[in-house]
Amino acid sequence: MHFTSERRLDDGVLEREFTLGEIPGTLWTPESAAPVPLILMAHNNGLPKSAARLVARARHSAARGYAVASIDAVGCGDRPRSAADEQARAELRRAMQAGEAVDGIFESMIGPLVEKAVPDWRTTLDALLELPGIDGPVGYSGWTALGIRLAAVEPRIAAAGFFAGGYVPRAQREEARQVTVPLLFLLQWDDEGNPRQRTLDLFDAFGTEEKTLHANLGGHTGTPWFEVEDGNRFFDRHLK
Amino acid sequence: MHFTSERRLDDGVLEREFTLGEIPGTLWTPESAAPVPLILMAHNNGLPKSAARLVARARHSAARGYAVASIDAVGCGDRPRSAADEQARAELRRAMQAGEAVDGIFESMIGPLVEKAVPDWRTTLDALLELPGIDGPVGYSGWTALGIRLAAVEPRIAAAGFFAGGYVPRAQREEARQVTVPLLFLLQWDDEGNPRQRTLDLFDAFGTEEKTLHANLGGHTGTPWFEVEDGNRFFDRHLK
Repeated sequence: MHFTSERRLDDGVLEREFTLGEIPGTLWTPESAAPVPLILMAHNNGLPKSAARLVARARHSAARGYAVASIDAVGCGDRPRSAADEQARAELRRAMQAGEAVDGIFESMIGPLVEKAVPDWRTTLDALLELPGIDGPVGYSGWTALGIRLAAVEPRIAAAGFFAGGYVPRAQREEARQVTVPLLFLLQWDDEGNPRQRTLDLFDAFGTEEKTLHANLGGHTGTPWFEVEDGNRFFDRHLK
Repeated sequence: MHFTSERRLDDGVLEREFTLGEIPGTLWTPESAAPVPLILMAHNNGLPKSAARLVARARHSAARGYAVASIDAVGCGDRPRSAADEQARAELRRAMQAGEAVDGIFESMIGPLVEKAVPDWRTTLDALLELPGIDGPVGYSGWTALGIRLAAVEPRIAAAGFFAGGYVPRAQREEARQVTVPLLFLLQWDDEGNPRQRTLDLFDAFGTEEKTLHANLGGHTGTPWFEVEDGNRFFDRHLK
């Protein structure tokens, strides 16, 4: 893990860009004498780690006493996309504009994206836990499909907050029952691209006995800021 | 309003029993130099104000800086029941034991209970707001059916937290769209006596643009304690 830049934010949080082989990442850490727990934070459907809302959440959680890391996994964010990926995205835009069903396109696009992203996140987790000042347990926050897969295969994930705003491939809907860690599941009640009943079914399917659903009125990007604070308190209960 | 007894709890909260005409009530107030906002707290389906879980919630909210009041409205809690009420309750027990549908019985029992309880709660609200040290705005917490009716007719209610664990009469299901104050709606995912879809439909029907659903795994009495704290933070956002 090589740090390529760093800056100290107003609230004392240290924001560092890093590379780990091909993987670009950002790490936010608080001023703390004692080791702090880690939260892995990913945006839905492979959106970039530099996305403004993700960065705002990451800084807020770091200021509250967490190390927070995000990466652009292979094919995600600003990483190069394959010709097949580009073609699928073009087809998705066309189908959405034409008002056609897009589940099939999402399945072919997001399914492989999740599969390929998981090794990059696990490699990053290995490296992060070797840094001084970062300790377990580990939380996960954000992209539901990736989070289901990570929680199913990665025993170091101790609690997870999922945002129900992206396509969840069939494989991860089936894996949901393997998620047995405490879970906070966030739903926007009128999310345009995200059928409500499918989300409620997914909440029902998770295998954990300690799961909470928070639903708020409004569309995909309308999540109220107090949910960021609720999310931090959820992690406080399980990681501290 | 006549105070009939008082005691100071460990956390400084003053717990006073009162009567207001025929209405028996309890008022919990914090140690505070400045006036504090008020929360009206009622238990589902007319259960008594002395119920242990209600008392625990009331004390917790009072210690956080609220005046909290609960009453046994007419026909509720320890107040005398009419012969018709007693008969309906006996019929309800019989039907539940026999595994029969109970919606009709609930409708005939809870509908009038809500109608009759509302004037007692409004009378109490008038009296409470004349006490020194209690100020608006006013929150409501608990029994959904009563809360819908109160929020629809009582402009002094500024925010409401409803527990979706009791029968909601048809009239209140229709009135739900008249609830326009910020709302926190609490659902137990596996509540035995409370069909989940009906609760989700009710959440959808509320007229407010600022509504949040919290759902937790488990049965009717399994609400986790952190929801009490979440409820207090909800009131902090809207009443302080």
